Amino acid sequence: MFEKVLAAKQRLNGYANKTPVMTSRTLNRLVGAEVFCKCENFQRVGAFKFRGAFNSISQLSPEEKQRGVITYSSGNHAQAVALVGNMLNIHTIIVMPQNAPVTKRAATEEYGATIVEYDPEKATREQIAHELQAHHGYTMIPPFDHEDVVAGQGTAALEMIEEIGQLDMLLVPCGGGGLLSGSAISAKAMSSTCKVIGIEPELADDATKSFHTKVLHSVKNPPTIADGTRTVSLGKITFPLVLQYVDDMKTVSEAAIIASVKFLFYRMKLVVEPSGALGVAAVLSKAVIPQGRVGIILSGGNIDAATMNMMLK
Amino acid sequence: MFEKVLAAKQRLNGYANKTPVMTSRTLNRLVGAEVFCKCENFQRVGAFKFRGAFNSISQLSPEEKQRGVITYSSGNHAQAVALVGNMLNIHTIIVMPQNAPVTKRAATEEYGATIVEYDPEKATREQIAHELQAHHGYTMIPPFDHEDVVAGQGTAALEMIEEIGQLDMLLVPCGGGGLLSGSAISAKAMSSTCKVIGIEPELADDATKSFHTKVLHSVKNPPTIADGTRTVSLGKITFPLVLQYVDDMKTVSEAAIIASVKFLFYRMKLVVEPSGALGVAAVLSKAVIPQGRVGIILSGGNIDAATMNMMLK
Repeated sequence: MFEKVLAAKQRLNGYANKTPVMTSRTLNRLVGAEVFCKCENFQRVGAFKFRGAFNSISQLSPEEKQRGVITYSSGNHAQAVALVGNMLNIHTIIVMPQNAPVTKRAATEEYGATIVEYDPEKATREQIAHELQAHHGYTMIPPFDHEDVVAGQGTAALEMIEEIGQLDMLLVPCGGGGLLSGSAISAKAMSSTCKVIGIEPELADDATKSFHTKVLHSVKNPPTIADGTRTVSLGKITFPLVLQYVDDMKTVSEAAIIASVKFLFYRMKLVVEPSGALGVAAVLSKAVIPQGRVGIILSGGNIDAATMNMMLK
Repeated sequence: MFEKVLAAKQRLNGYANKTPVMTSRTLNRLVGAEVFCKCENFQRVGAFKFRGAFNSISQLSPEEKQRGVITYSSGNHAQAVALVGNMLNIHTIIVMPQNAPVTKRAATEEYGATIVEYDPEKATREQIAHELQAHHGYTMIPPFDHEDVVAGQGTAALEMIEEIGQLDMLLVPCGGGGLLSGSAISAKAMSSTCKVIGIEPELADDATKSFHTKVLHSVKNPPTIADGTRTVSLGKITFPLVLQYVDDMKTVSEAAIIASVKFLFYRMKLVVEPSGALGVAAVLSKAVIPQGRVGIILSGGNIDAATMNMMLK
């Protein structure tokens, strides 16, 4: 799989942002290690999702591009697919629940995507998307369970290690496992002794359970503030990759997540969404005891006013 | 004066952060120019003030260092002096009003400074500071009206132009004029055709009036959200420097300042305090019509929860 990440890096060159790696003397002092934060909050659409969306969509055949692409998401993946469609002049259809936040819907429409609403009481987003796909011949770009999406997400860790050198530890947020498995593939190839640890909210610990029991667990609408990790479970492709490449999985409390968003805001002057702050939450709360040179992927920075106000109170 | 900025750069090497320059496709598109943001919110203590404090304090004689330094400030300059004192093992005394925000006082004390309170109804901070200075032999490090402070602040624009090349325009927040005059000295030396424009809140437009009339104007406790610009007036040293090196001064409304802090937060994922966002406010509100390659100094990122909550509402 690492060859696919290297190929993705070539494809993304000139399209994705090469995001900066930031450090903080205060953070290093508090956790007793040398921490490097890969700032995917500065990626296009404000999250790593652009990498996987561009890597997968840009590889479609001319006929597939002509027919258009579809996905289901109300979050960062939707915006990423919509932006890539806009850049490559491809029609994009995004299936969103009727009750999706207005701001997220607007951001996606701004990039020219067609939004298809559904009633979450009556159908799942996967059902609607697959029906539309079958009827119109759209290509499905799922949020994580796709090899080209995983390979694209893996370019963030690749870039970080190319820039700063060998790591002893790499902490990665885990929702559906696309970023985690892609990052682990890169880390194991580039820095073979690096321990890769996936971080989940305690309230959405399906992947942690799946990892430790080797049986797929799922959760339904977990009430975590880290909305990017509310996915039902790891996928058919990401679960085996996580088992193969990831060294450990740890969970963090909601309080630890909020404290880490505030630390990043007040001390590092970085806007990071709750899901994006899971790695920092792990080291600040001592869910992970960091050692040596520690990479942390800050996966995104899309946070709304209501969430921010709630956390700052 | 530019030789002093160059010397300051050498002195700061290895002590100050070389802060990144960030760009935004959205910002460029909105304003029709190529904008480069120098991120002094990522400077030590979260603001450019570290540069001037380090440059001035590090030049003191061993005897002066032994006696200690004093300043009056309840903001970023206080924290900068306290941190430099901590780094160089010099006793620092900060004169603050009794009603200074608890968080700012705590941040300054954290660096080991001695806080001296005064009653703003009964005395000015300058009076108290000068009395203590005379009695104990402390060296005064004023917030802006000092050649070595100005020279230190000028290193931010110097670094930016060294990194990104020639500019057509440079926008700089103006409080007491230390950052503005230092930046203008650097810009005129490094990029001679660059137009340097100081930006003030409409509610604290003393420097703009002073610039246009060539007579020093002052304001008293202007009710602007941009607390870093609430200084009474330009100084004895900074006023002539501003007249000599700055091309124009413009003002922005409180609404424009708030909109720019929010733009930086939501779109660029940067935490920037209201004073730090004045340059972005100027281009977004069209107080300045940007042309070509435009440098903007984001002067700091120290914002408290109350201010942030108020703005996000």
